[in-house]
Amino acid sequence: MKQKIAVLGPGSWGTALAKVLAENGHDVRLWGHEPSQLEEINTKHTNSRYLKEVILPESLKGEADLETCIQDVDAILFVVPTKAIRTVARQVVSKLTNRPMIIHASKGLEQGTHKRISEVLLEEISENKRKDVVVLSGPSHAEEVAVKDITTITAACTNLEAAEYVQKLFMNSYFRIYTNDDVIGVETGAALKNIIALGSGAIHGLGYGDNAKAAIMTRGLAEISRLGVAMGANPMTFIGLSGLGDLIVTCTSVHSRNWRAGDLLGRGHKLDEVLENMGMIVEGVSTTKAAVELARELKVEMPITETIYGVLYENEDVKKAAKNIMLRNSKSEKEF
Amino acid sequence: MKQKIAVLGPGSWGTALAKVLAENGHDVRLWGHEPSQLEEINTKHTNSRYLKEVILPESLKGEADLETCIQDVDAILFVVPTKAIRTVARQVVSKLTNRPMIIHASKGLEQGTHKRISEVLLEEISENKRKDVVVLSGPSHAEEVAVKDITTITAACTNLEAAEYVQKLFMNSYFRIYTNDDVIGVETGAALKNIIALGSGAIHGLGYGDNAKAAIMTRGLAEISRLGVAMGANPMTFIGLSGLGDLIVTCTSVHSRNWRAGDLLGRGHKLDEVLENMGMIVEGVSTTKAAVELARELKVEMPITETIYGVLYENEDVKKAAKNIMLRNSKSEKEF
Repeated sequence: MKQKIAVLGPGSWGTALAKVLAENGHDVRLWGHEPSQLEEINTKHTNSRYLKEVILPESLKGEADLETCIQDVDAILFVVPTKAIRTVARQVVSKLTNRPMIIHASKGLEQGTHKRISEVLLEEISENKRKDVVVLSGPSHAEEVAVKDITTITAACTNLEAAEYVQKLFMNSYFRIYTNDDVIGVETGAALKNIIALGSGAIHGLGYGDNAKAAIMTRGLAEISRLGVAMGANPMTFIGLSGLGDLIVTCTSVHSRNWRAGDLLGRGHKLDEVLENMGMIVEGVSTTKAAVELARELKVEMPITETIYGVLYENEDVKKAAKNIMLRNSKSEKEF
Repeated sequence: MKQKIAVLGPGSWGTALAKVLAENGHDVRLWGHEPSQLEEINTKHTNSRYLKEVILPESLKGEADLETCIQDVDAILFVVPTKAIRTVARQVVSKLTNRPMIIHASKGLEQGTHKRISEVLLEEISENKRKDVVVLSGPSHAEEVAVKDITTITAACTNLEAAEYVQKLFMNSYFRIYTNDDVIGVETGAALKNIIALGSGAIHGLGYGDNAKAAIMTRGLAEISRLGVAMGANPMTFIGLSGLGDLIVTCTSVHSRNWRAGDLLGRGHKLDEVLENMGMIVEGVSTTKAAVELARELKVEMPITETIYGVLYENEDVKKAAKNIMLRNSKSEKEF
């Protein structure tokens, strides 16, 4: 059944998801701030800064006014950077006219509180104002979804009926949705894998080979799973699409901005320089800080994450740090 | 302490491992059949067919006579193709003069019997003729080990002391060994991951993107783990170096012959053509057959493996097969 949906955040992922929804026949409005970008979406049907050479459906409307955008919608999809989630949720809640399903596709942990994104949304949008909160996550470069490459991702909610509603909204011949009830696992996997992508990119930028990259990804997945489990996740979720799947795509694809940021760090560029050069949010940088704080609090060993933290926040030499972590003395695989 | 070691099989992996051992100061003899290859190893200190532009240590000796090669050795390392393991083990046992440690670094399952390689070695070399049998496995392209890129792999044996002996033989500043006591998990992971590498290569050859590749690797790891566990493995081993690590390196690196064979299949080449073109053993092809037989016997669902089997052995169209498996209807991630 045709649904009215607001997508908040016209970056590459928000635009690609809005495109999928519009192609599935839904009435979709994409909310953003930049007048020239919205004008481009509405007249040229492109969003060339984020998705080069992709033609958007004519039915997809860019909208600058949040109140108009979310009026009478059946669902609201948040695809804004982690640091903007709480502010945008507050803006939304003051303007809600009915009780929409809340969906988000952002990947990170809130700075300071270390809260997952669904926790922030549940806190800010009270139960009488919404239906459930569903997380959308998995191995999915926006650039590939936008050109209809086959992609499989996860819709997670403790209420499986809500996850199935979201599955139906998005499912088509190239975009395949699987449901999962482990929200904590899906959200922590999505957020924490960006740390390993930074590390994997740095290993590449430093000139290490595929053997070393596979080792850092394997040991990286082990340590982010440990933290996720300490936060309440099901360990099996980390070897699913939103864990391992997303880790693989983020650590081995040229499309990943976290990987590219790591690669530049490995080549000796300074963090400020890298972030300026990227021109997009690199979620892994702040997630590393949140993860280190959480790991210390929960007494979880995360040697790779601690190493990346040292390079990002304590000015440690990336070459020396990488060598130390690769040559770290462990005897049994279980000591990872 | 300096050890006398025979390495059986002068392919790329056997040569790279022999090089590591010789560089670690051991007395290493590399057994092979091809006189011109052995001559090249002994005079030019190269093995150019398998490891281009790599200079081997002068102390590393090529040897055509098996009896001379294994005389008085402390350890024998088997790096021959799976289908030759039993024959070579029989030849070895008739000429053994002392009780060496037996190590192997081959990846496959015996055709017909579906036995793991250590099982074949234990059967053919009776206890009074050897010490333990240790498996060496992990994410390790020979080409990278040969140029001293940092590599981390697993040495597995139910007797951890034997695994630690092998760890000491190989460990140096670029080759890092971790011990593990789950021999079944390490061997099944090593063998079965080649099936997923074929599938991942085919997905690439067919023109699918990174999202699809990540999905096939994720779901592939899940199904090979299911079979491994049914065979007695610890599920955790599959997310370690010899499982996930090796899967990543095999499915994402240009060095992998199984991936390359899959890529050619995806581009529409016939199996005979592909195998001829490769000029090396592609273990995944026979492993797929063994795995399908085992899965049917043990009642384990392996949809990806069954699909690859159809393409390899039942002349199914690779394009149609890939589409079917990618669009397979599943609702929850647990139904994988």
